[in-house]
Amino acid sequence: MRIARFSKDGQISFGVVEHDPAKGSSPDELASLTVAAVLRQDDGSLKPTGTSHALGDVRLLPPVLPSKIVAFGRNYAEHAAELGNEVPDVPVTFLKPSTSVVGPGDPVPYPSFSSEVHHEAELAVVIGRVCRDVPVERVPEVILGYTCANDLTARDAQRAEKQWARAKGFDGACPLGPWIENELDPADLAVTCTVNGEVRQSGRTSQMIRSVAEQIAFVSQAMTLLPGDVILTGTPAGVGPVQVGDEVAVTIEGIGTLTNRMVKRD
Amino acid sequence: MRIARFSKDGQISFGVVEHDPAKGSSPDELASLTVAAVLRQDDGSLKPTGTSHALGDVRLLPPVLPSKIVAFGRNYAEHAAELGNEVPDVPVTFLKPSTSVVGPGDPVPYPSFSSEVHHEAELAVVIGRVCRDVPVERVPEVILGYTCANDLTARDAQRAEKQWARAKGFDGACPLGPWIENELDPADLAVTCTVNGEVRQSGRTSQMIRSVAEQIAFVSQAMTLLPGDVILTGTPAGVGPVQVGDEVAVTIEGIGTLTNRMVKRD
Repeated sequence: MRIARFSKDGQISFGVVEHDPAKGSSPDELASLTVAAVLRQDDGSLKPTGTSHALGDVRLLPPVLPSKIVAFGRNYAEHAAELGNEVPDVPVTFLKPSTSVVGPGDPVPYPSFSSEVHHEAELAVVIGRVCRDVPVERVPEVILGYTCANDLTARDAQRAEKQWARAKGFDGACPLGPWIENELDPADLAVTCTVNGEVRQSGRTSQMIRSVAEQIAFVSQAMTLLPGDVILTGTPAGVGPVQVGDEVAVTIEGIGTLTNRMVKRD
Repeated sequence: MRIARFSKDGQISFGVVEHDPAKGSSPDELASLTVAAVLRQDDGSLKPTGTSHALGDVRLLPPVLPSKIVAFGRNYAEHAAELGNEVPDVPVTFLKPSTSVVGPGDPVPYPSFSSEVHHEAELAVVIGRVCRDVPVERVPEVILGYTCANDLTARDAQRAEKQWARAKGFDGACPLGPWIENELDPADLAVTCTVNGEVRQSGRTSQMIRSVAEQIAFVSQAMTLLPGDVILTGTPAGVGPVQVGDEVAVTIEGIGTLTNRMVKRD
């Protein structure tokens, strides 16, 4: 099931994205998708309100507003190598602030302190429960679902500043979306990034050095995870610069495509 | 004015901490302090509700629940030197998650993945307004006030993991309190840390490499700051290990003392 957050006529709702075969042959074809507004029941189930919209008639929002975003660096060996880094013995983890989140279709202002922003397509995991010290085998119980992320990085600031709060935490540095897919096996999914339609990154989650379950177990030893928190699982090889005007699209097999345009910052 | 957040009989309130000279001679003497509950008016002013408590009869809570905590590393030259680090040309900034915040008097569970947690006493700045790209000279307008912080750090994990999300982001790694002082010049305040009553850190904010205003201007170039966000301004020399059972107290001149005990993690 694809769970989206959207606004329509100024009202924000959650909805389930559905495919109407009568309107198109492909389940990923925009014209064939509708979003049915839902409300969460006391038992946790989602009940349709009866209102439904064509996807093109609503504005999709970030599907979640995380209290924290914990990201893993160098979790694909080829990507570590392309930046001249070794695969770390211990995972490299960093945080991105909630103010870095934007939704599908939202413009990303090019930060004023950088002239070398890179795209990094990543599988994002959305946490569904309060949890800590989660054993690897119980990680599936704490996952709500998966979405696409772009871990945008000011590579010049990343090199200069040692810690990455600014380089990876600027406003707009964490596009998330287009929705949360809650029925998905993350073990072997294609992760692609295109810039203006040209493929720049193309990897598979099976190339991760540490699995989704291992990553969440590791983080939860230190930090309590809250519902809506997001884990970014690392990027495959092929990262590179984006310029003002570029359209950057992250596609993950079984989820969909997250598209954002780089714009000039006010 | 000292603005506290407290619970009493299960109810959470904000209050103004006041000194009753009839009950003690020193304005910092616990027995002489009362907290008068307040409500914020539409014009931003605080109106007493008429309820007042002895400070010893309430539980002080973290005075703020930040959406993000941005911290500066190596902002005192002697501290950088004691860990064998150079003073950075560009500020070192990192984030701590909201789940790391605990209040005055709260126990701090010693993290399971570390055997070398260090205290780091710091002046914390609480942001009062939505802002970005704040020029140095206008920083005072965006500051609500100041409180004490302990930037607890798992030094072993910090060395091993390159990025510091776990080392500085574990549950309890950010004690804040005891209250927000909103009438204070941060330029030259004594910052002290004691462990079981013994002085370990003793510095002055005048020793900062980058001033509070310079730090906030720097961060706000990258990230929009929200009301309640917290900036940690670096720690003076003298950091060192704490053990389970230790009582760690951070005192900042003009604010007060933040005390926490290290406990065994469940």
